[in-house]
Amino acid sequence: MLGRDDTQAVSGGPTATSTPPSAAVPFTGAHQAGIATPAQDRLAMAAFDLSTSSRDDVVAMLRTWTAAATLMVQGRPVGDVENAPLAPAVDTGEAYGLAPASLTLTVGFGPSMFDGRYGLGSRRPAALADLPQLPGDDLDPDLSGGDLVVQACADDPQVAFHAVRNLARLGRGTAAVRWFQLGFGRTSSTSSAQVTPRNLQGFKDGTNNIVAEDAAAMDSFVWVGDEGEQAWMRGGTYMVTRRIRMFIEAWDRDSFGDQESVIGRHKISGAPLGAQAEHDAVDLTAVDAQGHPVIPATAHIRLAAPSNNGGQRILRRGYSFTDGIDPVTGELDAGLFFICFQRDPRDGFVALQRQLGAHDALNEYIRHTGSGLFACPPGVATGGWWGQGLLG
Amino acid sequence: MLGRDDTQAVSGGPTATSTPPSAAVPFTGAHQAGIATPAQDRLAMAAFDLSTSSRDDVVAMLRTWTAAATLMVQGRPVGDVENAPLAPAVDTGEAYGLAPASLTLTVGFGPSMFDGRYGLGSRRPAALADLPQLPGDDLDPDLSGGDLVVQACADDPQVAFHAVRNLARLGRGTAAVRWFQLGFGRTSSTSSAQVTPRNLQGFKDGTNNIVAEDAAAMDSFVWVGDEGEQAWMRGGTYMVTRRIRMFIEAWDRDSFGDQESVIGRHKISGAPLGAQAEHDAVDLTAVDAQGHPVIPATAHIRLAAPSNNGGQRILRRGYSFTDGIDPVTGELDAGLFFICFQRDPRDGFVALQRQLGAHDALNEYIRHTGSGLFACPPGVATGGWWGQGLLG
Repeated sequence: MLGRDDTQAVSGGPTATSTPPSAAVPFTGAHQAGIATPAQDRLAMAAFDLSTSSRDDVVAMLRTWTAAATLMVQGRPVGDVENAPLAPAVDTGEAYGLAPASLTLTVGFGPSMFDGRYGLGSRRPAALADLPQLPGDDLDPDLSGGDLVVQACADDPQVAFHAVRNLARLGRGTAAVRWFQLGFGRTSSTSSAQVTPRNLQGFKDGTNNIVAEDAAAMDSFVWVGDEGEQAWMRGGTYMVTRRIRMFIEAWDRDSFGDQESVIGRHKISGAPLGAQAEHDAVDLTAVDAQGHPVIPATAHIRLAAPSNNGGQRILRRGYSFTDGIDPVTGELDAGLFFICFQRDPRDGFVALQRQLGAHDALNEYIRHTGSGLFACPPGVATGGWWGQGLLG
Repeated sequence: MLGRDDTQAVSGGPTATSTPPSAAVPFTGAHQAGIATPAQDRLAMAAFDLSTSSRDDVVAMLRTWTAAATLMVQGRPVGDVENAPLAPAVDTGEAYGLAPASLTLTVGFGPSMFDGRYGLGSRRPAALADLPQLPGDDLDPDLSGGDLVVQACADDPQVAFHAVRNLARLGRGTAAVRWFQLGFGRTSSTSSAQVTPRNLQGFKDGTNNIVAEDAAAMDSFVWVGDEGEQAWMRGGTYMVTRRIRMFIEAWDRDSFGDQESVIGRHKISGAPLGAQAEHDAVDLTAVDAQGHPVIPATAHIRLAAPSNNGGQRILRRGYSFTDGIDPVTGELDAGLFFICFQRDPRDGFVALQRQLGAHDALNEYIRHTGSGLFACPPGVATGGWWGQGLLG
């Protein structure tokens, strides 16, 4: 467990509290932005299916996307706004005049990119193994998978939406949107300067996340290193997305004490059961006067603890979502759109979800309805383009 | 046309630019908040069907809702957070620690409330006439209607979501959610201090809205007066909601010049065609050198102009939405969630939409997929409750 302190100033690196909402996040660098970047407040995310058989088309689209992204993260439209009247608009326009809002755009490649259509079979990383069927999976194929993904995070949802929409527009004829998800509020902190937000179950979520300032943890668990991996992925990472529906009506009927037992934390303070403050250490060995564990055997934080997962940790980036009413049950279709980054999903998300999916007391109140797995290449060099190491 | 100036300071009354996002908007008053209140950035809205045959149940729910709303608009939970462990939580918790974020909650009663179940038939206002079939309607019943509506607007979407969810929870057994809509960004200004936002077509939207500072227009067109109406509606207004899907892929393929002709405004500046600045007067009589109207005959702003609608005006409160991918077409299900308030919908929205639905050049790019009509009673007095004048 990382004993971090929200009130402590962190030297170096951008933080959410020191970055005004109008700021632009640099697009180029060793790693893609939107992974270690302090989690912005809003998400727009789309997965795409490629509709071309031509590798050149894919390359052309990725070059076009990179040029557009470079402008959009600066708060600029995709080209000159003095449009020729007889041509379609070069930019859809809904973000004209808005600040950059810390927009980041992060691209990943799904396993299906390597199926042979583009001659990439031998470049498929071992870590990009198809996710196995996991306990409790109830996945909708229309909300899962994709050849490519674009994660747009920003502090203004219109800026995030505009970015995804324009990439979709520029990719038309080459890629079609497979699924799209809006996330209205962040449920993760990726910087020690950020206050831990609450998810739609009302609990502080992700207290023991890796934070980007912890360079050792980022190198151990998030960034792909120099050995034992496809060279084009060095400095990259693997993204897993899960659309986690919460049965909030059932959750709301549960008793306050049982909710705390299910999570293993106090609801108001966020402290582990038996402790006082949110960032107090999680003591999995503590027992009460009757000899029962203070943090129950099936509590979420026990099963998710690194000590129960071979020391593995993940970098989380989660967002609350709502998509209206479930037509079958009449209940709210809402929950957590979970994104995590790790150096190898087989050790990271897959191992963790085998444990959680089978035993977590939370399973009574949640269901995984969508899933994605993507290889996020390293950052774009100045003058380079997304995926250049793979397709260039 | 109202010749207002965004740069001009307005004396008296709250404005979006002078109100910090943490502010609380008063709940009680002559009118319900959320109508003349400067439009907040985010929307969460739910319509409910009553599942009880007991008028007393409806009254009890509205009293409970009023008490909860009074707390929530102050940024407070619905009751004591020191919850008894064996009882369900008194508040779902996801807004603990968040600022009030200018939350407003606005309630309305649909025509079906007056169908005889609650002995209210004789209290139905004449202005609450069922909306007729309108040109171009393609309404989904699951996204339309409702006995009751709650509009939550706030500058933090989590605060707005929390409020609607908790009212739904408190109403369980008496009312069930019929439809729910999240709006991620405002597309209307209701104060002259607000900058006109852009909608998902990239155009500035609602430039010639009524603004709340224009008391004469509010009294003429929005608030129900003292004569010719049910007494319980005096100080109230009528709300029409329309879920307007935009075919943004088709729009994006249209030429820049045609987009401007369809709307009747320049896209970048927002100026009427033939004029220079957004708030320049709309000259519907101007013709070009060939004698053609500068603002085309079917342009949106011509058909919507008060001079083409018997002088009628409405107060708009619109939000951009996206609900993922349309499973039939594979295109984005996104658009404008349109809300308007008027003293009599027969003179306001219905007359306007007869004109627009039949002739508006915009119809090629939009479709109305949801619809609601609600009588919003006047404001709640201190110690009173929502709908007291109708049901008390």
